[in-house]
Amino acid sequence: MSLAPFPETSTDDLVTLNDWLIEADPVEIADELTRLSSAERAVAFRLLAKDRALEVFELLDPVLQQELLEGLRDTSVRQLFEDMDPDDRARLVDEMPAKVAKRLLAGLSPRERALTATLLGYPENSAGRVMSPEVVNLKSSQTAGAALERLRRIGASAETIYALPVTDEARRLVGALGLRDLVLADPSTSIGELMDTEVYSARVDQDQEEVARLIQEADLLALPIVDTENRLVGIVTVDDAMEVLEQEETEDVARISGAEPLGRPYLTTSIPQLAKSRIIWLLVFLAAGAVTVNVLAIFEATLATAVTLAFFVPLVIGTAGNTGAQSATTVTRALAVGEVRMADLLPVVGRESSAGLFLGIVLGAVAFVPIMIFTEPGIAAVVSLTLIIACTLASIVGSSLPLAAKRIGVDPAVMSVPLITALIDAAGLIIYFLMAKVVLGI
Amino acid sequence: MSLAPFPETSTDDLVTLNDWLIEADPVEIADELTRLSSAERAVAFRLLAKDRALEVFELLDPVLQQELLEGLRDTSVRQLFEDMDPDDRARLVDEMPAKVAKRLLAGLSPRERALTATLLGYPENSAGRVMSPEVVNLKSSQTAGAALERLRRIGASAETIYALPVTDEARRLVGALGLRDLVLADPSTSIGELMDTEVYSARVDQDQEEVARLIQEADLLALPIVDTENRLVGIVTVDDAMEVLEQEETEDVARISGAEPLGRPYLTTSIPQLAKSRIIWLLVFLAAGAVTVNVLAIFEATLATAVTLAFFVPLVIGTAGNTGAQSATTVTRALAVGEVRMADLLPVVGRESSAGLFLGIVLGAVAFVPIMIFTEPGIAAVVSLTLIIACTLASIVGSSLPLAAKRIGVDPAVMSVPLITALIDAAGLIIYFLMAKVVLGI
Repeated sequence: MSLAPFPETSTDDLVTLNDWLIEADPVEIADELTRLSSAERAVAFRLLAKDRALEVFELLDPVLQQELLEGLRDTSVRQLFEDMDPDDRARLVDEMPAKVAKRLLAGLSPRERALTATLLGYPENSAGRVMSPEVVNLKSSQTAGAALERLRRIGASAETIYALPVTDEARRLVGALGLRDLVLADPSTSIGELMDTEVYSARVDQDQEEVARLIQEADLLALPIVDTENRLVGIVTVDDAMEVLEQEETEDVARISGAEPLGRPYLTTSIPQLAKSRIIWLLVFLAAGAVTVNVLAIFEATLATAVTLAFFVPLVIGTAGNTGAQSATTVTRALAVGEVRMADLLPVVGRESSAGLFLGIVLGAVAFVPIMIFTEPGIAAVVSLTLIIACTLASIVGSSLPLAAKRIGVDPAVMSVPLITALIDAAGLIIYFLMAKVVLGI
Repeated sequence: MSLAPFPETSTDDLVTLNDWLIEADPVEIADELTRLSSAERAVAFRLLAKDRALEVFELLDPVLQQELLEGLRDTSVRQLFEDMDPDDRARLVDEMPAKVAKRLLAGLSPRERALTATLLGYPENSAGRVMSPEVVNLKSSQTAGAALERLRRIGASAETIYALPVTDEARRLVGALGLRDLVLADPSTSIGELMDTEVYSARVDQDQEEVARLIQEADLLALPIVDTENRLVGIVTVDDAMEVLEQEETEDVARISGAEPLGRPYLTTSIPQLAKSRIIWLLVFLAAGAVTVNVLAIFEATLATAVTLAFFVPLVIGTAGNTGAQSATTVTRALAVGEVRMADLLPVVGRESSAGLFLGIVLGAVAFVPIMIFTEPGIAAVVSLTLIIACTLASIVGSSLPLAAKRIGVDPAVMSVPLITALIDAAGLIIYFLMAKVVLGI
């Protein structure tokens, strides 16, 4: 399907909109709904045919789902809510005011209510919150033919039947089998013979991101989730894993630039929400930046003697800051994708400080000649020497702080570039003026 | 499987290593191999049992695959290469010197060679490079029972049979069916009745990242790939989509901090490789930073009259830079995940400039009192007014440059934070000193 984009339309132009909503595919519709104002979104959503409405609804961000529900009639709300997958429903409930959530949960059928309540009982950000409790398990004593027969009967309600966990009589996980192998097998073979006993699984209280990374690394379609006694309690599917990873990455990108994650699609955020996500951190950085004012005030006499020194302040601290930022973002990303662990502190910092020293030497050498020509050799020497020391230091600080954050259980991305830069700025200025005192003798 | 991590071992300690290689799961082994030196990796890999070796090999980064092949005997190399999926093989060939690639391709069976050659014929970064050409298609006239029978015969070699494209007699895509629906259906129903005719697909020359995002947004297990005449040529599976997205995200994170992507796992990069990925951009930023030197030189007289002004230079430009960086990273990420498009320039810049103005006012107000107390009201006014104007400007620059880059077909992440900061630094200094001239009358 490749269709024209959402028609440029006022809400008056309902006919065009209606035609488009019939022709476009659900992903396009969800994309365009995300870009509308709340009022327009509510109107467009109500025009959707019933079966498409659920499909589109499931593709929307939970924040927008919640807003849409507020504008719908009670019967439509109840139906949508009842038809959702339990894990999507749990995510939506998280976004709701407790009172609304309670009322909606009360309206569910007993079965769906119980499934959702189970998921909501697991800690936030745990695998339990994103797993589907409706998992079809096979028994190792069954034949392939009998297993397929059973799938035909009960498989329709499960979130996936492509990855099939195999359990023993106490529901303990003993193996797994792909639907593909089941379909391709001789119907008389037993599941015990067919199944793979080397099976990946995760604990229900494990972190969502870890679980999602395992699904990605092992190229799985779904991962069985077990309790502390290795009993099967659910399954996390690859689409949920992709969503978890996208969200984690969006959060990391926001944090590393020194902002709180928005938690909702960009075009649906208001200006106060945008400002709010940034102001606290900007105030922290402003406070950290106040240190540079004090450093400069301490060296006032030096500065007054050689005002030329001031010319290079932004260049020197900016360059050191950039070097530190490169180290910090590289290490933060390597930690996020699991390429680096806390235990790698020494090799990482060793590598980064060597790279920083090398970069400082190159940058110092390049800067030396033009500065010497336009000012004097003494100033050029001060700038170049400072670049060498400050770039090395910046790489050490930039690489070790994310690892240190991880060690104390804080998101490494919180050691954001602006925070690291602020630290490097102050240190860089001290180095710069001490160099000036030594080299220029002032 | 939850096992002890890779044993701390020298290559002498081969017995422990061997035991660990038998017990650990392939993902763990691949993870640990990635963290070893080239020599250690080669030793550990050769200890793997033959069937595990292929499994682990497929989980490794193409760069490491290539290095490993160099150290293996010719017969092992040929076997590994023959057993790989065609799309993984195409990715590996991309990493090889042309001569090695040619020799290895020549050693393949005619069938595998033809499949790989087809993929390598598509442009780099296109869907054609990551798709599997071994796709099983159904005919709409078949019954479900006949289709299942056919799958049992030919399904084993396909990369996936979970998403089954349906084609007409000219191999044009007319629908799709999940294996689940096929298995759950009455065997006598025709595929034409069962299939979904609203089917997502992508063109073989489309960008990989676009294709991967569609798979993610639509929660697909696989996406049929067609040529210009809508004929089925292959299928992209969700695990390849996840890999594409992870790689694109790692590249974006590197670019936005002003470094070239490493293109290989962090712990396997050498210090010269690390430095090389950063030095070019640092030199660009150094050149851009030279503008600040000139701006300060122009205002030398002002600076000499009121040396106190110099104290606030890092604070003012740092704060404006941070505000601009927040805008730039937010917009770059929103572009990457498809929440914002080029056409959204006006709403995005409008939103960001309003947020920037608000942030500037708050930061300016907070900074005013302490600066007034420790210096004088005039300086405090200069700093506060500069913060208001510079933060607004920074948000405009930070949000519009990524969109402008995208419009001219450049990766928005190339408008990196350091580049935007360098521009803002120069502009911020000009605003600062003009303010000083006006307010302080110097």
